[in-house]
Amino acid sequence: MPAPASRSRLSADGPVLDGIPEHGRVPRYYAVKVELLAVIAELGEGAVLPTERELCDRFGVSRATVRQAVAELVLEGRLTRRQGSGTYIAAPKLVQPLALASRPRVRPGRTVITLERRPAGRALAADLQVTSDAEVCHVERVLLAGEERVGLESTYLLASRFPDLLAVFDPERPLEGCLSERLGVVAHGAEERVETVLATPREALLIGTNPAVPMLLTHRIAWGRDGVPFERVRSLYRGDRLSFTTRLGRAD
Amino acid sequence: MPAPASRSRLSADGPVLDGIPEHGRVPRYYAVKVELLAVIAELGEGAVLPTERELCDRFGVSRATVRQAVAELVLEGRLTRRQGSGTYIAAPKLVQPLALASRPRVRPGRTVITLERRPAGRALAADLQVTSDAEVCHVERVLLAGEERVGLESTYLLASRFPDLLAVFDPERPLEGCLSERLGVVAHGAEERVETVLATPREALLIGTNPAVPMLLTHRIAWGRDGVPFERVRSLYRGDRLSFTTRLGRAD
Repeated sequence: MPAPASRSRLSADGPVLDGIPEHGRVPRYYAVKVELLAVIAELGEGAVLPTERELCDRFGVSRATVRQAVAELVLEGRLTRRQGSGTYIAAPKLVQPLALASRPRVRPGRTVITLERRPAGRALAADLQVTSDAEVCHVERVLLAGEERVGLESTYLLASRFPDLLAVFDPERPLEGCLSERLGVVAHGAEERVETVLATPREALLIGTNPAVPMLLTHRIAWGRDGVPFERVRSLYRGDRLSFTTRLGRAD
Repeated sequence: MPAPASRSRLSADGPVLDGIPEHGRVPRYYAVKVELLAVIAELGEGAVLPTERELCDRFGVSRATVRQAVAELVLEGRLTRRQGSGTYIAAPKLVQPLALASRPRVRPGRTVITLERRPAGRALAADLQVTSDAEVCHVERVLLAGEERVGLESTYLLASRFPDLLAVFDPERPLEGCLSERLGVVAHGAEERVETVLATPREALLIGTNPAVPMLLTHRIAWGRDGVPFERVRSLYRGDRLSFTTRLGRAD
């Protein structure tokens, strides 16, 4: 999948060698999956995939085999199922920059799920260099790309540092906007970690996704000019819908 | 899991709210999974997990329920299975910096799988800004962390730019070392993309992992002082064994 309409230099995606082991049997479902990738490329985004029965006839395999191939392509975000209306060729993954002032390439939105003050607790207190009974504001929001739910974001801010946060808070915008424009706080640096996890049932429910879809989890801590951390953000993104880019070294 | 013995600022990992939906039923396997996380924390790395039968008795659930909870914890890298000897508490994920001269925190090694010259082909040619019949050197290696296979790396370099590559190539070291010390080529900048995918059967075989484990795939293009790309690297890492960190903005 090419990075859509971006200035990204990255285009080619697949391994140059195909997925077939040099030694050992080729799993039948995998051979069907490779065939289906060609069908997907030919039909293009938004097209309906032929029915299971048609695919069984075309490839001369059982329904179970077709189902396994289709299930993997759904988990990988190449196909998408719509309730009651079949299986479609999915849109390419969205490309999200990992950056201090990252501008997502699809119109973003946010729906507030939780807005609370609570004691930091041990782990968060260590990250924010405070005692564990220090109060934090916790804002939990579902992340939208256009109309689509793509993730879940929890932001924790030290309440003592942002006493006016709730007064200036705009639920639909990134908190960075409020912090910098209204409160004059700008991140000087941040550390971000990316890993892959499975969603909890609660998270899958909120994002509206199948709990078997691998998710990308980012943890971020941002600090000000004084080097003191003021924010911790835990963001969970649908791995079938998003990828992250970062530029290293000096930009050209 | 804390980032092991690192200077990372990131420590707390879990969602602050537990995985239980506020509305709707709590899946039984998920309740068992939460209980097992407490067992894992208590027993510590390297300990043997109690048998399925013991866990069924302890939690008063069926074998199928215990199996589903254990299977998810294996996919997430919290538990690990050793053939014929049971299930163990896994070591924490390795933390790998995304950086131009990244130093992995575990002794790295590489085993060469493929070493060839081949035409670039269309997608790679676009990335490297050459014609698709231009020759590239392709080096494919299994990545090791200590004794453990953790990933698979394919590096593509323009053959015309590195005619002496094979003469100076050290199979066990990152190519950056050869390029900079022997050939005087240093990356001035790079773009890296991270996403989650499933391994192909060939990749799962080479890395020695279960094809159901979500993998982290990174694509990287590096360019020199002249802004011309000279290298494309596709790296596949076990998502149950690795996470990536990056620092944004000025370091403190």
